[in-house]
Amino acid sequence: MNARSAEEFEAQLRAIGEQRYHHLHPFNERMHAGTLSEEEFRGWVRNRFYYQVNLPVKDAFILTKLPGRDDRRRWIQRIIDHDGRTGDEGGIERWIGLGEAVGLTRQELLDGESVLPGVRFAVDAYVDFCRTRPWLESVASALTELFAPDLLSKRISDVERHYPWIASEGLEYFRARLTQQPKDIAHLLELVIENATTREQQDACMRALEFKCDVLWSLLDAVQLEYSKS
Amino acid sequence: MNARSAEEFEAQLRAIGEQRYHHLHPFNERMHAGTLSEEEFRGWVRNRFYYQVNLPVKDAFILTKLPGRDDRRRWIQRIIDHDGRTGDEGGIERWIGLGEAVGLTRQELLDGESVLPGVRFAVDAYVDFCRTRPWLESVASALTELFAPDLLSKRISDVERHYPWIASEGLEYFRARLTQQPKDIAHLLELVIENATTREQQDACMRALEFKCDVLWSLLDAVQLEYSKS
Repeated sequence: MNARSAEEFEAQLRAIGEQRYHHLHPFNERMHAGTLSEEEFRGWVRNRFYYQVNLPVKDAFILTKLPGRDDRRRWIQRIIDHDGRTGDEGGIERWIGLGEAVGLTRQELLDGESVLPGVRFAVDAYVDFCRTRPWLESVASALTELFAPDLLSKRISDVERHYPWIASEGLEYFRARLTQQPKDIAHLLELVIENATTREQQDACMRALEFKCDVLWSLLDAVQLEYSKS
Repeated sequence: MNARSAEEFEAQLRAIGEQRYHHLHPFNERMHAGTLSEEEFRGWVRNRFYYQVNLPVKDAFILTKLPGRDDRRRWIQRIIDHDGRTGDEGGIERWIGLGEAVGLTRQELLDGESVLPGVRFAVDAYVDFCRTRPWLESVASALTELFAPDLLSKRISDVERHYPWIASEGLEYFRARLTQQPKDIAHLLELVIENATTREQQDACMRALEFKCDVLWSLLDAVQLEYSKS
C-alpha cells in the first residue's frame, strides 16, 4: 500500500491518542474529578517518579542513534530539561518538589523501594524499546507528547481546585512542561513525519505510539490496583 | 588480592598511558617531527574525523548507564563540547575547520566514504565497548584523556612550526580541547578511582584503558599503512 499523506498520517497518530492516551484512564479521571484520597495521590506521585527518572535514560538511548549532530543538538535539550545542569534545575528535581508537597520525602523517592512491580515493568519496557528499536520507532514512542499539553493545563487547574492540601509550588513540574513541550513536539513531528516515508515505517510509528500509550496506561493500572482498594 | 590504594591505582593507570598511548606511534612522532607530507596529514585528518563524529555517540551510551543525575549533568557536557548547541559551535565543527585548513571539503568529511576499514573497525569497536560494557569500564575507556593535554599543547606548537601551509585557525579544535579537558579529566578520575573499589574492578578499568589505547593506535596504524607508502 502507498504511504499516507503527511496530513492523513498525523491525523491517524492523533486518533490513537484520542482513543488510548492515559487521559481516559479511570484513575486519571478521578484525579481530575477531585476524588483521589491523599494516599492515592501520593501513590501516583511516588510511582510516576520512576518514570520521570528514566526519561533522561531513554532520551540518551535515542541520542545514541539519531542520524546526526543537528538532531542530537535538539534532542539533548530533553535530557537537560529533566536532569537540569545545576542546583535545583530540571524535571526530576521539580517532581521531588511535587513529592514533598504531597508528603513524601526526597529520600524515599530516590530510594524507589516502594515502586510497584507493574510500574517497573512498564517503564523498563519503555527504556528497552528505546534501547533496541530503530531510531525512528524510538522517537515515535515519544509521540504521546502530542496529547500532553491539554492534559497538563487541565491538571494544573483541577489539582489546584480539588486538592487544596497540595501547595501550589508543588505543581511547578507541570507548569515547566507546558513551556518546554511545544518545541519538543515540533521537533518530534518533524522527525517522524519527514522520515516515515513508507507505509511500513508509518505503521511502525503508529505501533510505537500505541505501545507508549500502553506504558502510561499500565502505570496507572498498577497504581490504581494498589492504592484504590475499596 | 587486595585493592590498590588510590595513589597506586592512578600511578598504574598513568603507566599504561606512558607505554601505550598513541603519542608513541611512529605516525604521530613523524607528525611532530614535521616530516608528514600534505597527503599524509590530510589522510589523518580525514580518518580521525570518523573518531570525532562518534565521540558524542559513545558518550550518549555512557549517559544511558551512569548511576544517576548528578553524573549525567557532568558527563553531558562532553556531548555538548563535541556537538555544540547551535551554529558553528562544537568539536565536530572545529574538526571540519581543520579539514578545510588541510584542503578537504566539508562534504567529503561528512560523507566519510574514504574512511579506511581499519579505522572504522577500531572506532566502531570503541562505540560498541561503551554500548555493552558496565558503566565503570565504559567510563574508564575515556582515561586516555589523562594523556591528551601534554600531547595537544605539543601538537599545536609543532604543527604551527612545521606545517606553515596549515592556517593557524585550523588548529582551533586542539586549542578548545586544552580548555575543555581539565574538568573532564577531574570527573573521570573521580568516577574511576572512587568506584573501582575492588582489585577486579581496578583490573577491569586498566584493561579498558589498554583497549582504548589500542583503538587510537590502530587508527594510526591504518592511516600509516595507507598514506605512508614508500
